[in-house]
This record gives sequence, C-alpha cells and structure tokens, in this order.
Amino acid sequence: MVEFDDIFRQQLRELFVWRRDVRRFRTDPLPNDAVDRLIETACLSPSVGLSQPWRFVIVDHPARRRAVVDDFISCNADALNAYAGERATRYATLKLSGLEQAPGHLAVFADKESDIGHGLGRATMPETTEYSVVAAITAMWLAARAEGIGLGWVSILNPDRIHAILEVPQSWKFIAYLCIGYPEAECDRPELEQAKWEHRRSATEFTLRR
Amino acid sequence: MVEFDDIFRQQLRELFVWRRDVRRFRTDPLPNDAVDRLIETACLSPSVGLSQPWRFVIVDHPARRRAVVDDFISCNADALNAYAGERATRYATLKLSGLEQAPGHLAVFADKESDIGHGLGRATMPETTEYSVVAAITAMWLAARAEGIGLGWVSILNPDRIHAILEVPQSWKFIAYLCIGYPEAECDRPELEQAKWEHRRSATEFTLRR
Repeated sequence: MVEFDDIFRQQLRELFVWRRDVRRFRTDPLPNDAVDRLIETACLSPSVGLSQPWRFVIVDHPARRRAVVDDFISCNADALNAYAGERATRYATLKLSGLEQAPGHLAVFADKESDIGHGLGRATMPETTEYSVVAAITAMWLAARAEGIGLGWVSILNPDRIHAILEVPQSWKFIAYLCIGYPEAECDRPELEQAKWEHRRSATEFTLRR
Repeated sequence: MVEFDDIFRQQLRELFVWRRDVRRFRTDPLPNDAVDRLIETACLSPSVGLSQPWRFVIVDHPARRRAVVDDFISCNADALNAYAGERATRYATLKLSGLEQAPGHLAVFADKESDIGHGLGRATMPETTEYSVVAAITAMWLAARAEGIGLGWVSILNPDRIHAILEVPQSWKFIAYLCIGYPEAECDRPELEQAKWEHRRSATEFTLRR
C-alpha cells in the first residue's frame, strides 16, 4: 500500500495548475519512446467495467498529417464565420492548434463495439465508454506535463473526416486529436484567459447541495 | 515556471497505479471541507473553450440518497438479467457500488447550454462539453487518492431518474454519480481484475501507427 505526503500533494496541485492546453510548440523532436510511454501511462486509467476502450493512433505519415491540418483550417474557418462583430475579430487572433509545429500527433478513439469488460456498467450509460477514454487522455496529459512535455487537444475537426484520413475500424469513435511536443513557454494561466476570451469562475459558482 | 523531478514522476506513477474505483468504504465521515476541496481541484482541469461546464451536486438529503440507492438496485437487477449462465453467476457476486456505506455522495453534470466559453471548440464536437467534465472528475479522483480518500464512479443508474431525484436544471446532462469516503482497503489491482471478470491488456494491443 502506498501513502502520499504533503509535499507530494502540494506538487500534484502545482501539476494541475501548470498543466496547459499547449498550442505553441518547439519543433525539436520528442525522445523516441515518449509517446509510447505516455500511452502506457494512459492505460493505467479507470475504465467502465474494465473495458479499456482506448485506441491510440500515432500519426506519422506526412500526407495524413497534412490532411488533418487542412481539415482543421477548414473547420476553423467555419467556426470564425459563426461569430460576428468584436467576438469574430477576437476569434481570428486566437491560435487554436499547434498541429503544424508539434512533433507528435496522436489521435485517440473509443471502441464502441469491443466486448472487453462484457458490457458491465454500460447498459444505462453507454457513453461511459467515451468517458473512459477521456480519463485516459487526462492521465496522459498530466504525466506529459510532469516531464516538461506539452499536450494540446484539438477539437476543431470533422470526426468523419479524421476517421477517413486515418482509416481506422468502423466501430471506433473519434474522441481527440492530440498535439504533443515541448512547449515554447510555460504558464499557469489558460491561453484563452490571457487572451480575455473567457475568465475562470470559482468552484462555488458550480456547486449545489441537495 | 514549475519543474518536476524524477521522485515526483515516480510518485505520480504510483498514484496512477493505486488509484482505484472504490466500492468498499468505511463509514467514518470525511473532514468537513474534503468534498469542497476536491471540487475546487477539479475546477483546475482543462475544459473546451474554457467553458467550465462542470456542475456539482453534493447529495446530503437522506431521502434523495435512498432514492439513488433504489435506482441502482433496480438498474443492477436489470443488468444481471441481461447476462446468462456462468457470466450471470459471476455478475451476481460482484459488489458494484458503495452507495450505502460511503459518507460522501456527489453527482456531476455537464451544462450543455451555458454560454461560458462562447461555444469555442464545440461546433464540430459538442460532446467535448461532457468530456471536459470527465477530465475534471479524473483530476478529483487522483487528488482524492493522494489524500487517502477513495472514490467510486457508479454508472449503473438511470440518468433521467437521477435528474428527477436531484431536481437540477433541464440543460444539465448527468455524467457521473460518485461515492466518496475512506476505503476499507487499498489495492493496486482493479476489483474486476481480482474477481477475474476481465483482465488488463497491454498498451501495445491498443496502439496503431498511421
């Protein structure tokens, strides 16, 4: 049995505070085994009924990477068009992905049809399959930051298009596209907060008692 | 800027290994502010477009807790009926929730209609709202274990029923019902693995290259 002390808990809190969604990467490569080690850590995560529904796709082929970047550019242009006035002006200045600089590209899917776990815990809430994959991504994100590696989650993508670009099995649902690399700079504040897009609220604003 | 060392990284890995889905709780109470502190930590998590869609409901009222337990009993009976033979026999022996013993009950929702974050990053993947809430739960789970507190995620529930029992706003989507308390025992292996319900696979089994 393992116990943790105050020093560890303080550092863990610092990790939560300094874990960022990184969009500005240095282009120097990651250590060869870095992404595989992060995937291995992700697999220590909880999953509904021990279903381990996470499926990882390390994207190395330049043509596939380029197609993902092109899909982002297209989806981001559509997103800009949905804003108007001052909000549109501000959106246009935001840097929302590091796809072109990040040395590591990792797509993550949830296998919706695997029998691993024998369906336990998923009957009334089948979406817990996707949630298990998100828990794994969160673990990987924290582990990455602990070794100075930044991770950025890009969601401004067309899931069907990503599915086609990566030629993955039909039963896999697209969850996240992750940019991985060394960040240009470290910060304890979200980039969208620095850019005055949105501000962070207090936990009490989000808590009810019943 | 904060850097982490090898000792912290080793302990973080131990935290991932020893974080369990707890179903067997001691009944002694948690410190008064424990759940609020965990919620505050959860709010340090990443969220799509800084939307902070997490909504927490601390469930203290005995009648509401009883109604949740009754819903679990009903859903779990249905789940058992869906198995047959040896698998059904084995399912019947599993303890799948600590709802009756855990001193803390926390329901977690995603607000699907909040304008916080101005929709950024959610146009093509609106489900990233739910995913942001799962990331927050994962952070809380790790922080809890670091102070010796166990958390168990119960998904064998009817979301509509939980919504009604807790009388929360219509736009909130039910994500998780969490039991929180001190675990009876600590273990580095999932209970479903110990019970031979399912075994853990290697990360390489889940990784493709493209």
